[in-house]
Amino acid sequence: MALIVQKYGGTSVGSPERIKNLARRVARYKALGHQIVVVVSAMSGETNRLINLAKEIMPDPDPRELDVMVSTGEQVTIGLTSMALMELGIKAKSYTGAQVRIVTDSAFTKARILSIDEQNIRRDLEAGNVVVVAGFQGVDEHGNITTLGRGGSDTTGVALAAALKADECQIYTDVDGVYTTDPRVVPEARRLKSITFEEMLELASQGSKVLQIRSVEFAGKYKVKLRVLSSFEEDGEGTLITFEEDSDKDSQDMEQPIISGIAFNRDEAKIAVLGVPDKPGIAYQILGPIADANIDVDMIIQNMGADGTTDFTFTVHKNEMNKALGILKSVQAHIGAREIVGDDKIAKVSVVGVGMRSHVGIASQMFRTLAEEGINLQMISTSEIKIAVVIDEKYMELAVRVLHKAFDLDQA
Amino acid sequence: MALIVQKYGGTSVGSPERIKNLARRVARYKALGHQIVVVVSAMSGETNRLINLAKEIMPDPDPRELDVMVSTGEQVTIGLTSMALMELGIKAKSYTGAQVRIVTDSAFTKARILSIDEQNIRRDLEAGNVVVVAGFQGVDEHGNITTLGRGGSDTTGVALAAALKADECQIYTDVDGVYTTDPRVVPEARRLKSITFEEMLELASQGSKVLQIRSVEFAGKYKVKLRVLSSFEEDGEGTLITFEEDSDKDSQDMEQPIISGIAFNRDEAKIAVLGVPDKPGIAYQILGPIADANIDVDMIIQNMGADGTTDFTFTVHKNEMNKALGILKSVQAHIGAREIVGDDKIAKVSVVGVGMRSHVGIASQMFRTLAEEGINLQMISTSEIKIAVVIDEKYMELAVRVLHKAFDLDQA
Repeated sequence: MALIVQKYGGTSVGSPERIKNLARRVARYKALGHQIVVVVSAMSGETNRLINLAKEIMPDPDPRELDVMVSTGEQVTIGLTSMALMELGIKAKSYTGAQVRIVTDSAFTKARILSIDEQNIRRDLEAGNVVVVAGFQGVDEHGNITTLGRGGSDTTGVALAAALKADECQIYTDVDGVYTTDPRVVPEARRLKSITFEEMLELASQGSKVLQIRSVEFAGKYKVKLRVLSSFEEDGEGTLITFEEDSDKDSQDMEQPIISGIAFNRDEAKIAVLGVPDKPGIAYQILGPIADANIDVDMIIQNMGADGTTDFTFTVHKNEMNKALGILKSVQAHIGAREIVGDDKIAKVSVVGVGMRSHVGIASQMFRTLAEEGINLQMISTSEIKIAVVIDEKYMELAVRVLHKAFDLDQA
Repeated sequence: MALIVQKYGGTSVGSPERIKNLARRVARYKALGHQIVVVVSAMSGETNRLINLAKEIMPDPDPRELDVMVSTGEQVTIGLTSMALMELGIKAKSYTGAQVRIVTDSAFTKARILSIDEQNIRRDLEAGNVVVVAGFQGVDEHGNITTLGRGGSDTTGVALAAALKADECQIYTDVDGVYTTDPRVVPEARRLKSITFEEMLELASQGSKVLQIRSVEFAGKYKVKLRVLSSFEEDGEGTLITFEEDSDKDSQDMEQPIISGIAFNRDEAKIAVLGVPDKPGIAYQILGPIADANIDVDMIIQNMGADGTTDFTFTVHKNEMNKALGILKSVQAHIGAREIVGDDKIAKVSVVGVGMRSHVGIASQMFRTLAEEGINLQMISTSEIKIAVVIDEKYMELAVRVLHKAFDLDQA
């Protein structure tokens, strides 16, 4: 007998029929003697419907009042889900975020969880109930309704699993696990049976949008065993997200492939500040105004020039390239840059794998593979478990395909 | 400067455009220096949409979970209404029933208000906010979400006005006040400037469905000054509901018409238990089983027969006539009735007015007027401020028209 938290996303609760399916799945787990907490999102489309309704009244909706409205999406789903379970003869009880007391800070529309009072849920579980909790929402210390921001239902699931010390947190979604890369780009992509937390973080932040990155961080921090599964498949095993410290993980390491997957992202743009005097403090002079404008920076690279000057290059989200360029041009004279150029026709492709730490030659194999296709590397950035390159956008799919093959990711 | 509670029904908040209209009206009151609490219903159609969604999952929805779902209707409206006010530059803050702490009993889907904590609202009003409260909902002492049942938003408005000792509770609806009778039946019907609480009760319970009867009772109990207005008319004065004890009301009494209005109702059916032995306890033997079956009885009449037997006649809702007949036939032998007959082709027509207490001859004028049209009276029932008759359904409109004219209700 285990305590399992199951989180179902918007498509998994998108219609009464799908909610009934969900209830049948929960019933099967319950029949095995498990205690189940179900976390649900709003029915697909509902959150957007509510946001658009708000914008008809107030083009830039007030965050507190928007949270009051948007949180109703999950509130409807918890009622429906509880009733679907009751129809199968299973005792069920719903909780809004406020009713659990999922206490958050007061950052409306992007609140962070501060604490969870798990006592009522535990009492209901002991009494034989399936407990159904609204994802994505909480309450601040003044009793205001808050939401955790898009994808926050994953975070609710993981946070509840942590608070309840659940045996496993299962995230049901419309994909059946984490793949070596996006199957739409590489049909040979395979589902991974397991992946480390760190790899998952890299894959998620690089664009494999299976899980919210925040929920993965949360799972890592609180050592929650996390599994991604498909809600449309009866007996899938999904992908287990493990932590390197796990002893049972270590024993698998010998069979673990060196590279777990290929991630890619075409949402970024490159900004190059060329011919800057090579002196201390220049990086801060360039990135300070960017940070002040709340523009997130991803990769940062600085090359030494021959003439005592340096080239400083970094990437931002495509939507913010023009804003960033405007800021830099206003300080160009001050920092003494010769030229400032932006390029939004780029893509980032990353090779990710815990195994690369103990294996030399991954970088050279990657670079050779891309060179053989005539793909030029504009930027390179490495971490312990990742090598990322920026290339011309038009070569992205080609790069992902050849790397996937070069690292034998299509082999079972 | 006054403290005013304004309640807006589903049609008044039925679209973003109507919510903006509502906000403009509130803004006009605010500009006069008043403190305003706005109580809103769900957007028209939304409550039914949610109930139907629940029934797709659970044909007989669990009451607790239904309340969790249905209460989201008003929660969306409070967010939208607050934002509409903010767009006009007015400080506004929304409250769900649970956030106010409108504490109710735990009778899900038909809860009753036990207490209201008005302190937070008062603080927000003092700080210059318009406070927007979700009607129709509350929270029980265990933190469960409850709803007050259909029309409960009126009750929320009146209860808040009582708790805040508001100067006036304005109920905005799609009619512009209380009329002498239904204008669809008598085009000459006039809007009443004021009506007493008792008359209102009679008119509402008789079928003039302007206000929920429970909210009027509530207003009477707590002496809340209640006004019915149209939300689609800019400068209407509506109808003020007064209490006879009000001193300013007494001074008007001389000009007050004797009769305030004509009510009618075709929802009832008549059941006659004929030839019952005329002995003590017979009324209980007949009505006991009816009450046990939770069937509401309205008019009750007993006539002495010539042969030591009596005829016992009463009315029930049309939908329950067959159920009531079935019950009575199962006990017919026991009570010794000769015959039991039902008739659902009847209508009840009532003449209502506080003034009739001090004026003789109202009953005889009513009966003569109906007799002149050849309308037979099947039952008669009187109270201090009402004379009701049951007639053949097909004469109902005729009866209402001739009575409206006979009592000069078409005269300004």
